[in-house]
Amino acid sequence: MPTLDQLNALSDADFASALDGVFEHAPWIPLAAATQRPFATVTALHDALMTVVRTAAPDVCDDFLRGHPPLSPKALADPALTSASRSEQTGLGMASLGEDLARFETGSSAYEAKFGFPFIVCVRRQTPAFVLRGLQQRLDNDIAAERAAALDEIGYISRLRLVDRVTGPGMPRTGGHLSSHVLDTARGRPGAGIRIELFRENVLIKSGVTNRDGRTEEALIEGEPLRIGRYEMRFHVADYFADYPYRADPIWYDVIPVRFGIAEPEGHYHIPLLLGAWTYTTYRGS
Amino acid sequence: MPTLDQLNALSDADFASALDGVFEHAPWIPLAAATQRPFATVTALHDALMTVVRTAAPDVCDDFLRGHPPLSPKALADPALTSASRSEQTGLGMASLGEDLARFETGSSAYEAKFGFPFIVCVRRQTPAFVLRGLQQRLDNDIAAERAAALDEIGYISRLRLVDRVTGPGMPRTGGHLSSHVLDTARGRPGAGIRIELFRENVLIKSGVTNRDGRTEEALIEGEPLRIGRYEMRFHVADYFADYPYRADPIWYDVIPVRFGIAEPEGHYHIPLLLGAWTYTTYRGS
Amino acid sequence: MPTLDQLNALSDADFASALDGVFEHAPWIPLAAATQRPFATVTALHDALMTVVRTAAPDVCDDFLRGHPPLSPKALADPALTSASRSEQTGLGMASLGEDLARFETGSSAYEAKFGFPFIVCVRRQTPAFVLRGLQQRLDNDIAAERAAALDEIGYISRLRLVDRVTGPGMPRTGGHLSSHVLDTARGRPGAGIRIELFRENVLIKSGVTNRDGRTEEALIEGEPLRIGRYEMRFHVADYFADYPYRADPIWYDVIPVRFGIAEPEGHYHIPLLLGAWTYTTYRGS
Amino acid sequence: MPTLDQLNALSDADFASALDGVFEHAPWIPLAAATQRPFATVTALHDALMTVVRTAAPDVCDDFLRGHPPLSPKALADPALTSASRSEQTGLGMASLGEDLARFETGSSAYEAKFGFPFIVCVRRQTPAFVLRGLQQRLDNDIAAERAAALDEIGYISRLRLVDRVTGPGMPRTGGHLSSHVLDTARGRPGAGIRIELFRENVLIKSGVTNRDGRTEEALIEGEPLRIGRYEMRFHVADYFADYPYRADPIWYDVIPVRFGIAEPEGHYHIPLLLGAWTYTTYRGS
Repeated sequence: MPTLDQLNALSDADFASALDGVFEHAPWIPLAAATQRPFATVTALHDALMTVVRTAAPDVCDDFLRGHPPLSPKALADPALTSASRSEQTGLGMASLGEDLARFETGSSAYEAKFGFPFIVCVRRQTPAFVLRGLQQRLDNDIAAERAAALDEIGYISRLRLVDRVTGPGMPRTGGHLSSHVLDTARGRPGAGIRIELFRENVLIKSGVTNRDGRTEEALIEGEPLRIGRYEMRFHVADYFADYPYRADPIWYDVIPVRFGIAEPEGHYHIPLLLGAWTYTTYRGS
Repeated sequence: MPTLDQLNALSDADFASALDGVFEHAPWIPLAAATQRPFATVTALHDALMTVVRTAAPDVCDDFLRGHPPLSPKALADPALTSASRSEQTGLGMASLGEDLARFETGSSAYEAKFGFPFIVCVRRQTPAFVLRGLQQRLDNDIAAERAAALDEIGYISRLRLVDRVTGPGMPRTGGHLSSHVLDTARGRPGAGIRIELFRENVLIKSGVTNRDGRTEEALIEGEPLRIGRYEMRFHVADYFADYPYRADPIWYDVIPVRFGIAEPEGHYHIPLLLGAWTYTTYRGS
Repeated sequence: MPTLDQLNALSDADFASALDGVFEHAPWIPLAAATQRPFATVTALHDALMTVVRTAAPDVCDDFLRGHPPLSPKALADPALTSASRSEQTGLGMASLGEDLARFETGSSAYEAKFGFPFIVCVRRQTPAFVLRGLQQRLDNDIAAERAAALDEIGYISRLRLVDRVTGPGMPRTGGHLSSHVLDTARGRPGAGIRIELFRENVLIKSGVTNRDGRTEEALIEGEPLRIGRYEMRFHVADYFADYPYRADPIWYDVIPVRFGIAEPEGHYHIPLLLGAWTYTTYRGS
Repeated sequence: MPTLDQLNALSDADFASALDGVFEHAPWIPLAAATQRPFATVTALHDALMTVVRTAAPDVCDDFLRGHPPLSPKALADPALTSASRSEQTGLGMASLGEDLARFETGSSAYEAKFGFPFIVCVRRQTPAFVLRGLQQRLDNDIAAERAAALDEIGYISRLRLVDRVTGPGMPRTGGHLSSHVLDTARGRPGAGIRIELFRENVLIKSGVTNRDGRTEEALIEGEPLRIGRYEMRFHVADYFADYPYRADPIWYDVIPVRFGIAEPEGHYHIPLLLGAWTYTTYRGS
């Protein structure tokens, strides 16, 4: 992966070529930004690229928007799909929508008929359910609001693609953080040895066991966007109070599920569990 | 104490006499209401009395307001003070204001100079600190707002006096409720044998010990107004966890103070304590 | 349904006949207890019946135990099954065990081979999963411990059958209680209008909506045994904070599941939810 | 302050001289340990010194114990008091015991009469109230148990004195940690701008204001022993909810006191406050 310094030193054409695909079928964007080099930070580079996009003439902008592939399982069969789009759409997994997929396809057609360009969304920041919800909400926009919404999404998409393509000082923040912590409030110590499972839209995506400090060795999600969507943590505590003298049989709590919604993909989310034998408290921590 | 039925059956003059002192030096008020008898409820009687007051001509009303005694330790020495006023002012205990008493006296004089009648407040619904706070707030009113405020207070005063003077159906609600409940969330059972003390403005006014259900045998306050003011409950839990195997020495919690402010004298306040050995939670319950 | 007074007044034979089926194929039990009449309470009547059972000669007792039907979906096809047994086994629904049913059948055969009488359990006090767990635990007993365990279960069975057959003073306690309560700790008031669903072993068995006091109009379970097993309450709070100014989109909590295990079928279980917008606490209340 | 390397390089006599006063009137202790040099860590040096003490002949040991000054306000007037003892006793402030001081003096005399040496305690690890409690408990010891207890205290005293006299690798842990954290669970963010006061035995010893992360800029106590005793944190939250739409007037909570007992002077104590507008939770965190 090139460094920012290396990108700063390239010819304009080579610079544009190095950033090919950060924007979909639009080599003119990095080419226009090339003249503003050198960039001191990767964030400044991204800001310059987005300024080119946002200040383009309306017809150029609409052409650019029209150059985006449709978001659809069928699009994955199109050999013209860029590899970034293919990877992003595959990671999203729209097929998990099940019978809602037809609703998405219908909405997607209605969107393109209304606005003249395909529905664009940064799929790395969303779950399929919220991509569908966003489509339904944005269908009500007028063309000006929707052009702005599409460009905001292109800002998110290109920022994520850019940090995969260059290293250097001042990297933009693209990742979030999700962690937990178990405190045993019946015995006044961290809750160790408790398995935590993390589900996103009912799919297990991560698990870990709390250590002596009541934390999993690594964060449940770190360094990537937290997809907007609904999550569930499950704390497996059935064995934790096995030798506690004030327990019942069967035990009062065996699995403690905590369901929550993520709204900020780049946010810092900490969800502690204050665990007594006959009570628990959870909250959004910091 | 006469019943409402008995009051309904009296002559107008005897009715007015029976209610003498519910309003300060104003026999014309019950006399005017007498003609609306019979009253089906004590609440309806009180409403009728207050309607007489609120619909009186402005000069009559101001005369009535001027007939009230000043709220002051000095007023207690005045033999013309009605026994109801004497009892209420004694119960309030303005002397506990200490050095703030001078501020109250100054404000009181400024109030009478501005409005032409003494500062009137239902002292059975307030602590001295909040009587002072109320005086300072009401000094900023204009005369119309202040006349209304004074009549509201007379409504509270007369309602309390009336329920001391007559029994019958439809008694107005003049009392509040304050109670607590201790749950032992470390052992999954009520917290029994815990002494609870209740302080109002730093003075101990009630104490009790929780029974097998985690409650005191009687409410901490019941059937009288909860004086607007600041309170503190102290839960004495040092011995409660004496035989709990996961305690420290000295014990983590020995006394748990919970400070709170009462805003509704006729309200229902329930303040549970969820007590673990190394945690507690309190909240306004219902 | 006859009253206890009426039972007390019958001939011995009619008394025994009136209680036919409280014990499985054992008219000699009520006949022996008949001579101790009159009974002052239904509880005293049940105690007398169980004393007859517990003091029977060992071979009589084993004969009695052997007279019980096997607990099995197949037994439901046997026309000799008493109607009480049929109703109880149907209510249990062993078929819900799915592939664990074969494990139960195997254990059941092993049990009968080891002890000489069928596995007896008060199925109205258990879920199928805990009937299976109980079988596996009791298989390890020796014959004396197991005879005692079987008689304890017959005590539970006959107590429940008896209260379906006679009314009168001193009814034995056969039912439990399960309720909830939602307090809105962000706004200091009961949590109204929240739908609560109750699941037992993943099957929805009851739902309700909280009223102005934060409670469902009726208890979630009342007046019947709480089957030993695992439960889940789901609090549907997505709309509750719809107009709360400090919410996120998507909302932080939409469904709050609380899973718990019931150990005492005749117990009083109260499970409050202290609900803030970004926190919640649950505990075993009283 | 000399480094451990420098101490390792001194002559035996200079080494003993450099550590003069770490043990009270006992230059023979460092002199005996000098021969084991070089020490790799300061902890190893302290262990070696204590081994000299613990393996001394009984009469030598008792002489050493007898060489300690009495713990008493009167002792401060004795010019023979070592400066370390003077500073430690002054920091303790036995005078704050008030009328309990006479009980302490009586107990202290009884102690010396019973054991033949003065009551020795590491006063930097205790509040006066717990020094008194410890004296009363230790009076019941037999001589063997009490000699061991006194040597344990000398271990604590000398460890604290040593870290004031030498720097180097492997410093022994002599300090504890006490901190807090406020989470606003009504609004889902850290609780900023809240003043926290820390009292020890009713004396204010530290205060701070929470920053944007809900923490005070520095720990409430750090790097020194947490004196065994009773503490209170006061969270001043009256203004925190001033613009919150679901507050009452007067506000529900204005000051939240949390009282707790410290048992481990070198422990890590974290005491969060989960603050809603109508609830709060506190616990021992980690």
